[in-house]
Amino acid sequence: MRSVSIIGIGQTPVAEHWNRSLRDLAVEATLAAIRDAGVERIDALFVGNMASGLLCQQENIAALIADYAGLRGIEAIKVEAACASGGAVVRAAHLAVASGAHEVVVAVGVEKMTDVGIDGVTSALATAADADYEAAQGVTFTALNALLMRLYMERHGYRRADFAPFVVAAHENARANPNAMFREPVTVEDFLESPLVAEPISILDSAPICDGAAAVVLCPTERAREFTQRPVRILASATATDTIALAPRKDPLWFDAAYASAHRAYQQANLSPADVDFFELHDAFTIVSALSLEAACFAERGQGVRFALDCNIHRGGKLPVCTQGGLKARGHPVGASGTYQIVEAAQQLRGEAGENQLRDCHVAMAQSIGGMASVAVTHILGV
Amino acid sequence: MRSVSIIGIGQTPVAEHWNRSLRDLAVEATLAAIRDAGVERIDALFVGNMASGLLCQQENIAALIADYAGLRGIEAIKVEAACASGGAVVRAAHLAVASGAHEVVVAVGVEKMTDVGIDGVTSALATAADADYEAAQGVTFTALNALLMRLYMERHGYRRADFAPFVVAAHENARANPNAMFREPVTVEDFLESPLVAEPISILDSAPICDGAAAVVLCPTERAREFTQRPVRILASATATDTIALAPRKDPLWFDAAYASAHRAYQQANLSPADVDFFELHDAFTIVSALSLEAACFAERGQGVRFALDCNIHRGGKLPVCTQGGLKARGHPVGASGTYQIVEAAQQLRGEAGENQLRDCHVAMAQSIGGMASVAVTHILGV
Repeated sequence: MRSVSIIGIGQTPVAEHWNRSLRDLAVEATLAAIRDAGVERIDALFVGNMASGLLCQQENIAALIADYAGLRGIEAIKVEAACASGGAVVRAAHLAVASGAHEVVVAVGVEKMTDVGIDGVTSALATAADADYEAAQGVTFTALNALLMRLYMERHGYRRADFAPFVVAAHENARANPNAMFREPVTVEDFLESPLVAEPISILDSAPICDGAAAVVLCPTERAREFTQRPVRILASATATDTIALAPRKDPLWFDAAYASAHRAYQQANLSPADVDFFELHDAFTIVSALSLEAACFAERGQGVRFALDCNIHRGGKLPVCTQGGLKARGHPVGASGTYQIVEAAQQLRGEAGENQLRDCHVAMAQSIGGMASVAVTHILGV
Repeated sequence: MRSVSIIGIGQTPVAEHWNRSLRDLAVEATLAAIRDAGVERIDALFVGNMASGLLCQQENIAALIADYAGLRGIEAIKVEAACASGGAVVRAAHLAVASGAHEVVVAVGVEKMTDVGIDGVTSALATAADADYEAAQGVTFTALNALLMRLYMERHGYRRADFAPFVVAAHENARANPNAMFREPVTVEDFLESPLVAEPISILDSAPICDGAAAVVLCPTERAREFTQRPVRILASATATDTIALAPRKDPLWFDAAYASAHRAYQQANLSPADVDFFELHDAFTIVSALSLEAACFAERGQGVRFALDCNIHRGGKLPVCTQGGLKARGHPVGASGTYQIVEAAQQLRGEAGENQLRDCHVAMAQSIGGMASVAVTHILGV
């Protein structure tokens, strides 16, 4: 397998883009990444997206985006892995370059969620659960995560307030990110007073419904310096799955797909959790942040929330997470979020993270989680 | 790039499977292919599907199918390229093995179309066109193809009856295929008397709405004989795109994506059209068959229908097509059709095509077309 590097990154602001379509957003991010890479020729386009059919009445979006990005004719394929689609598309693009089939490819994650009402979005998101045995019972994604959070609190003795650090840190990091949706600070009091969606999950435990697109350009590592002085190497790219439904799991508080994909990534990169300088984790809900920290072996079981309470996840902490605001505050356009994570990790590794720049960071992990953690895609990046 | 071979094939019958779900069908085909390959371990699962979100309210189907096929934990990703999804998934799986990332992978194409009414299916299929500039005008896929057929007839001087050979041959080939949906013969008279859907397209010009799944197991060619005495080698795998909408094309009667993907495939395999023994083409409508023959360079422009009228496409003809009934008579579960083509091509090359077995066939081409030929995936297989 050829080593693969990121030579270009691009993104749109995350927002409710009432005046922009899925294709507008995807094209903007794609062209920004191509411009950033300074490449003249693209061999293939991979598009990550969860639910354009339900949300925009548009499938076949890889051909569509290739067409509107001025890349007509090239290979173009859409990849879907629920909310992990944005990570999965980088994995697919990585395989295309690693194989030798292509030299320079774009992976773009995009989601346009605000063209349908809240019921439409809730139904579309529920398609990532088991349609026949979960969603058909009327259980929303938030409700499923609420079950997890309640169980976690009871088993490990936490209160709602203990989850606040994830949210406070995310909003703090988003403040200086011009592409973030929520740039205002949030306090522990704000968190405690925010309205409940599905007890114990409140509005501020939850990532927002929004629109956005992010893209990376990949090429073989051995050619990366032809295009940029700041290549970011993909040290590992790994996907794993778990049961589609929550019920059959021995322990619903253990994200086995997240663990397995992180484990495979550590093996590929020949690194351990101690080598990771920061972690772009999938904070769709605060409980997911906690369980992700545990699954990726940064915290012991039941200690994910404690890890945050102990001030480890902030800039300057032991393991900064969601350094540009994460899904919570940068925003969570579902099929794009995993690609935003990788773009933001590359920004840090390139030293272009602005006020959020970490010192001495050389190794990043980005983990994108889909469904009820039924699929996870983990990348380790390095410079 | 490592050479990749097919070591196992599986399929469900194509039908209106009222009593079976998407997962049932996908699991059946997946397990049949694994059984056929005789492998004990699968490293990754790629799922091709066009519109499970709209048709079944289920996304995240790669994790779902991995779970229900007993492959929980492995890498699993869904690939979508409209009606070419069944070809695209083999392409994605091919890259995964060619790269060296995986040794033994399954590609399964699946579509469950009959859980929604005809309006729901028509809307879902329309998402492969340009949602904003075509589908929003109320143009269905059949109507778009009717425009092409009308133009083709006028430009090249054909009558409706001239398209009959595609349909007669498809139904004749389906007769002995136990997995085909329509096994009864059709005459030229039947064709001429069949009700019009969108003039000049009749019911019998059109592939049916149906359910089905087909799967292949791939591994590196150098390991293929560990598992089977009848490996089928993937000599080429190529995808190309065109405009998403029909209107911007210089010539709507030229399928540029189909041409480009076939051209790339010929180059990869170092073969020419004369080397191809049979062609599993994408006969979603008779006009698509004609234009595919032209785009893949088996007939001159305007001569695709003439090629069929001259008795070239039947068994024993110069270039047998759709040797097990094609999309028209075997059936067209959209996201699965491209995988069925490859399974059927492998059957022929392995000498397992039953009454439909061709003599002396060594090289097959399978071409899957999505949207208004806005994407095409071409494989060349050989023994």
